[in-house]
Amino acid sequence: MNKKGILFVITGPSGVGKGTVLAEVRRQKDVYFSISATTRQPREGEQDGVHYFFLTREQFEQKIAENGFLEHAEFSGNCYGTPAAPVDAHLEEGTDVILEIEVQGAMQVHRSRPDAVRIFLAPPSYAELEKRLTGRGTETEEAVRMRLETAKHELTLAPEFDYVVINNTVEQAVADVLAIMQAEACRAQRVTLH
Amino acid sequence: MNKKGILFVITGPSGVGKGTVLAEVRRQKDVYFSISATTRQPREGEQDGVHYFFLTREQFEQKIAENGFLEHAEFSGNCYGTPAAPVDAHLEEGTDVILEIEVQGAMQVHRSRPDAVRIFLAPPSYAELEKRLTGRGTETEEAVRMRLETAKHELTLAPEFDYVVINNTVEQAVADVLAIMQAEACRAQRVTLH
Repeated sequence: MNKKGILFVITGPSGVGKGTVLAEVRRQKDVYFSISATTRQPREGEQDGVHYFFLTREQFEQKIAENGFLEHAEFSGNCYGTPAAPVDAHLEEGTDVILEIEVQGAMQVHRSRPDAVRIFLAPPSYAELEKRLTGRGTETEEAVRMRLETAKHELTLAPEFDYVVINNTVEQAVADVLAIMQAEACRAQRVTLH
Repeated sequence: MNKKGILFVITGPSGVGKGTVLAEVRRQKDVYFSISATTRQPREGEQDGVHYFFLTREQFEQKIAENGFLEHAEFSGNCYGTPAAPVDAHLEEGTDVILEIEVQGAMQVHRSRPDAVRIFLAPPSYAELEKRLTGRGTETEEAVRMRLETAKHELTLAPEFDYVVINNTVEQAVADVLAIMQAEACRAQRVTLH
């Protein structure tokens, strides 16, 4: 029997740098990145099954009824969710899977998949996150303020995760995530001796 | 307040290659290696406080009475133990500590220090361990047979450890141990957010 893959859930507040860190992890490690399903319309250039699985609301609700999501939520009138089937297919064939999702979704996965390894990516400090979000300059002051409020709450949830990686530099955060992935493969319950 | 160090206990059957793997870990990482205390006589060239802490039996028993050992045992009429004080001093100042001890001692540390991270170094297979121990050619057939009997039992205890690292190659085993040390520093309960 082949060794099963490990499910990693990576989350963190908006602006912490999840995308940058995970793009580098992906470059360095053979791993399947979960693709979300959504009921929102595809944007220019977005492909079904690549950027998202685009579903109608009926299809989405059907999948909820079938228990087909690891987590799902609604934001601004659109549904988003993580379909279980492709994740499970990759785990079965021995590939590690990374879900990059927002904090509430990560908490949901904890309930649906208690065996998932959950990593919280945190800023070096709240002040630093404030600086990064304000520095973007692409949003209104009000929008930034709301993101920071959410982030403040999300940071209080960090202790509920298995690991907290502080994104001081991308290089160090990537090294930490890769070390966690390597270490988890050595967890006693995952190793069979011959 | 400074971050405390982490206590790692590394064990595995005789002949598995603990010494070789840990010498390389020591070369690559700043870590304190615990020094055992013993009542046996120093051998030629052995220095007190470097190779062992050499104690009289009275001193050893006094230390047991004071709860001064993380684990201790008697082999062929000599007492061996891991003194708690130097380990705790290094942990307090933020240095990670490695204890390399035999399997029964590692089980004892689990009880005295439930926060210790316990790693079991295992051979690729029992047959491979047999080959390595027989190949040494420095012991009688009977001594090798006894080591193998002990090893067989010890391998059944591997699932009680936190991690099992299979020593396929020294390089890979060293990388696994270093990844575990890096990952454990990211454990949520050890990270304080600011």
